[in-house]
Amino acid sequence: RGGEMAKLTQLIDNEVFRAYATYATIVLLKMMLMSLITAYFRITRKAFANPEDTASFGKGESAKKYLRTDADVERVRRGHLNDLENIVPFLGIGLLYALSGPELYTALLHFRIFAGARIAHTFAYLIPLPQPGRGLSWAVGYAVTISMAYKVLKTALYL
Amino acid sequence: RGGEMAKLTQLIDNEVFRAYATYATIVLLKMMLMSLITAYFRITRKAFANPEDTASFGKGESAKKYLRTDADVERVRRGHLNDLENIVPFLGIGLLYALSGPELYTALLHFRIFAGARIAHTFAYLIPLPQPGRGLSWAVGYAVTISMAYKVLKTALYL
Amino acid sequence: RGGEMAKLTQLIDNEVFRAYATYATIVLLKMMLMSLITAYFRITRKAFANPEDTASFGKGESAKKYLRTDADVERVRRGHLNDLENIVPFLGIGLLYALSGPELYTALLHFRIFAGARIAHTFAYLIPLPQPGRGLSWAVGYAVTISMAYKVLKTALYL
Repeated sequence: RGGEMAKLTQLIDNEVFRAYATYATIVLLKMMLMSLITAYFRITRKAFANPEDTASFGKGESAKKYLRTDADVERVRRGHLNDLENIVPFLGIGLLYALSGPELYTALLHFRIFAGARIAHTFAYLIPLPQPGRGLSWAVGYAVTISMAYKVLKTALYL
Repeated sequence: RGGEMAKLTQLIDNEVFRAYATYATIVLLKMMLMSLITAYFRITRKAFANPEDTASFGKGESAKKYLRTDADVERVRRGHLNDLENIVPFLGIGLLYALSGPELYTALLHFRIFAGARIAHTFAYLIPLPQPGRGLSWAVGYAVTISMAYKVLKTALYL
Repeated sequence: RGGEMAKLTQLIDNEVFRAYATYATIVLLKMMLMSLITAYFRITRKAFANPEDTASFGKGESAKKYLRTDADVERVRRGHLNDLENIVPFLGIGLLYALSGPELYTALLHFRIFAGARIAHTFAYLIPLPQPGRGLSWAVGYAVTISMAYKVLKTALYL
C-alpha cells in the first residue's frame, strides 16, 4: 500500500500535473461562484423558480408574484451554463493533455490563458461589457482547448 | 505492456482512489437517473419540447398542443441542471483530491457526505420538501467540494 | 523529475487509456461544435439573448426586436444540454473504466459505440429525424455508460 500511495503522490508531484490541478480547481471554483451570484440576485430581485422558495414571503397570491424570471438572474444563469459548456471540455481535454507529456512552459501557457479568458468572460457577461468583449474572451478559451485537443490526439490517437 | 497495465491497476487498487471511483460513479448514476425521470414526466404529462416527439399523437393541431412546458417536467430539469452544476466540480476537484494523498478516513468522509447531500437534494427537489431542506442539502455538497479544493490547492499549488 | 514524467507518459502509452483519450476528446470536440452551431443560428436567424449582442443592429427598439428566441437556436441549445447531461457521465465513468483494467477489445467497443451514438444523436436532433431515431441513439449511449459503470463498481467498489 505504501508503494501505491507513493505512486499517486508522484502524479501530484509532477509539475505539469500540479499546474493542471491548480488551474482546473481555480476555474471550477470560479464556476461554483456563479451559484452564489445567482442566489444573491434571486434574493435581492425576489425572483424565484420554485413555489417552496417563496413561502417565507407569505401564502397564496402574495408569494406567487415572486415566481418570476428576472433579467439579472437569467444573465447569471446564462453565464453559468456557458461555463459548464466550456469548462467541462477543459477539464477532460486538459487532464489528458497534462498526461500527454507537454513542456511545462507550454502547458502553463495553455492553463493560464484559459483561466484568464474564463475569468474575463465572467466579467464581460456580468458587467456587461460591450461586444466583442465577451465573444473574444469566449473564443480565446475555446482556441486554447482546441490546441490541447490537437496535442492529445497527436500523442494518443488510438481509434 | 504488462508493466503498464499493472501500474494502472495499482491506481484502481489504491483505497482512496477506489472510494473516489465508487462515489463518483454513484453520483453520476444518480444524475443520469434524472433523464429517465424527465422522460417519465414528459410522457405521463404529455409535455414535449420537439415537434417530432409528438408525432405519435397525431398530426397538425392535435399534436401541437403537447408542445408545451409542464411544471413537473421543468422541476426535474432544474434538478438535473443543478446536478450538473455541482457534480462536475465534484468530479474534477474530487479526482485531484483523491490524488493529493488524503487520509482514507477523511476522504471517505468527504465522498460519503457529498453523495448523501446530493441524494437528499434530489428528494428535496422532487417531493418537494419545504425550504431550507433543498438549500441546506445543496450547501453541504458545496462545502464538501470547497474543502476538497482547499486540500488540492494546499498540496499541488503551482501557478 | 525524469522518472515521474516517464510514469505519466506510461499512462498515455497504455492502449486502453489512449483509446479513452481519443474518444473522450472526440466527443468533447463534438460537444464544443454545438457552440459554433448555436452562434451560426443566432446570427443567421438574428435571435439573441443579450442586449449587448444586438447593439450592432442599431439602438433602441430597432435592436430590441432581435432579443428573441428562435426555434432552430433553441433546438441546438437542447442538443447541447443533452450532450452535457450524457457526455459528463461518459467522461467520469469512462476514465474510471479505463483505469479498471478492461480488455482492450471490450473497451474499444464501449468507446466506439458511445461516440457513434452521440454523433448519431446530434444528427437526429438537428436534421431532425423522426422518432425513435433520437431516442434510440440517446438510449445506446446511456446503456454503454451504465455498462462501464457496472464494471467500475465491480472492480473498485469501496463504500
